[in-house]
Amino acid sequence: MSNEGGVYSIPGQEFSRDTTYITTRITADGRDGFPVEPGRYRLVAARACPWANRTIIVRRLLGLDDVLSLGLTGPTHDKNSWTFDLDPDGLDPVLGIERIQEAYLARDPHYPRGITVPVIVDTTTGKVVTNDYAQMTLDLSTEWREHHRPGAPDLYPEHLRAEMDPIMRRIYTEVNNGVYRCGFAGSQEAYDDAYDRLWTALDWLEDRLATRRFLVGDTLTEADVRLFTTLVRFDAVYHGHFKCNRSKLTEMPVLWAYARDLFQTPGFGDTVDFDQIKAHYYVVHSDINPSGIVPKGPDLAGWTTPHGRESLGGRPFGDGTPPG
Amino acid sequence: MSNEGGVYSIPGQEFSRDTTYITTRITADGRDGFPVEPGRYRLVAARACPWANRTIIVRRLLGLDDVLSLGLTGPTHDKNSWTFDLDPDGLDPVLGIERIQEAYLARDPHYPRGITVPVIVDTTTGKVVTNDYAQMTLDLSTEWREHHRPGAPDLYPEHLRAEMDPIMRRIYTEVNNGVYRCGFAGSQEAYDDAYDRLWTALDWLEDRLATRRFLVGDTLTEADVRLFTTLVRFDAVYHGHFKCNRSKLTEMPVLWAYARDLFQTPGFGDTVDFDQIKAHYYVVHSDINPSGIVPKGPDLAGWTTPHGRESLGGRPFGDGTPPG
Repeated sequence: MSNEGGVYSIPGQEFSRDTTYITTRITADGRDGFPVEPGRYRLVAARACPWANRTIIVRRLLGLDDVLSLGLTGPTHDKNSWTFDLDPDGLDPVLGIERIQEAYLARDPHYPRGITVPVIVDTTTGKVVTNDYAQMTLDLSTEWREHHRPGAPDLYPEHLRAEMDPIMRRIYTEVNNGVYRCGFAGSQEAYDDAYDRLWTALDWLEDRLATRRFLVGDTLTEADVRLFTTLVRFDAVYHGHFKCNRSKLTEMPVLWAYARDLFQTPGFGDTVDFDQIKAHYYVVHSDINPSGIVPKGPDLAGWTTPHGRESLGGRPFGDGTPPG
Repeated sequence: MSNEGGVYSIPGQEFSRDTTYITTRITADGRDGFPVEPGRYRLVAARACPWANRTIIVRRLLGLDDVLSLGLTGPTHDKNSWTFDLDPDGLDPVLGIERIQEAYLARDPHYPRGITVPVIVDTTTGKVVTNDYAQMTLDLSTEWREHHRPGAPDLYPEHLRAEMDPIMRRIYTEVNNGVYRCGFAGSQEAYDDAYDRLWTALDWLEDRLATRRFLVGDTLTEADVRLFTTLVRFDAVYHGHFKCNRSKLTEMPVLWAYARDLFQTPGFGDTVDFDQIKAHYYVVHSDINPSGIVPKGPDLAGWTTPHGRESLGGRPFGDGTPPG
């Protein structure tokens, strides 16, 4: 079992995700005891993990690089979860720990749940503040606003939230989590149901994005970030490994062009490491890939080809600018 | 482990196929004690199996239906191999046996090798005559000639054999067997090598077939039959299950059109059962698909779309006619 933004179990039938997180928030007013403060916190993520990938993208788009440092674990892990095996000596250079598990146990020596990324650690104590990935990116957009770079986009604009929230919910349940529901189904029936739900949602998105460049409004929002991290992994992993194989992403013309548009936008594709993504899923999930062999395909050259989505209008960064 | 036209083992590194078969031949002159004789023999095949699929196609193309009867096993099997679970009472109506294993043991009570299909059984004794699938189809073309239907094609014409033999050898080692070498590689290195060999061969075929409608000459031959049975399984099984995933067949324009041309030719597509094919691989190979869950995809609607290969010329059946 893996630990991407949650722990999952297979109770014989249907895949379910443990969605209980440490919900302490870092806010402008510090009401949970953790005020926004440049240099104090460290985001720990894995490039392999779609839930963590969100935070890497949002941090880049908002220009929080100098304010919130980033630690990166390697793509694979054992039952004790993610390790800093990419760092010299296998230690995170700021936290000085080998495993992110140590920051969880610093917060609670009897921490009973999955050791997940992304997570934000308070560097003054070495303790986890939060691993609530869904709230985390929204807080980066709203609570950290005074530290955003000039020209940063508003990824969660107040006037669009009523439209964004149900769309992001559907993307979460049917797509982000839907691919896992296919891959970890405990029965043929559960898989068949999961497959139908997933493709119903992807058909809806193919239709919705045919006439609009972005999911909501005419600029990039958090909703696009959330859809992107699943789409970018689709052909490399979910299509084969999770049996999400009605078609490849490359065979859905609208979604494929949409995904390339985002991939080619600064802050998106430059956070993606396909080798780490493939290594993670195919090595860690030994229950569905016992050999641990990582496929060499697919050919990824298409990601940088022209997407033609400019003709739909839309301004990725609105009145702002791309990140450097 | 499965038993399609051979037994394979994984000695830690590279996949290898046991290619020792029962090589008794049924010939026009009966030199091995088994003369060609209408009604005497029964071909036992499985629609799921690519090696057996060859014999079903060739029997159809040559019009041997009334001369050589056909028994069909179900798509899945246990360690004792293929069973007649599709037949009423689970018994082959001619041989009266439950498992093809029984015909092997009738020939040799201590038969030491894999129980494979296709196989030809002598109905007068219930004993296996041969399971040498590669020779079997060539003998149907040459030794059974006097029983071919009027208008049957010559699938192994003497004047083309010098060109056909090395091509069929390369297709066997690199493609027919190459996909298995990918799927059952015992190490990352063995898989990587197998993948490169497979795609080198598929690129060669993509190039060769760009300017010629069929592999050799300008009519259908045994070489096309042998390539077809792997191509028709490619996206449904080998792409995901065996990690042959540089691209789908549908993404190789020449091979995809070539495969559709054959699929739409009487004697080819009408022998293919995608449900049985998928059930076989995904259920029987529990070592690489422990869950036994069968993917719902891919969408197969494309197989019946126009292929446009007529413009290359060629006459599928030469001066003959398609089977009924």
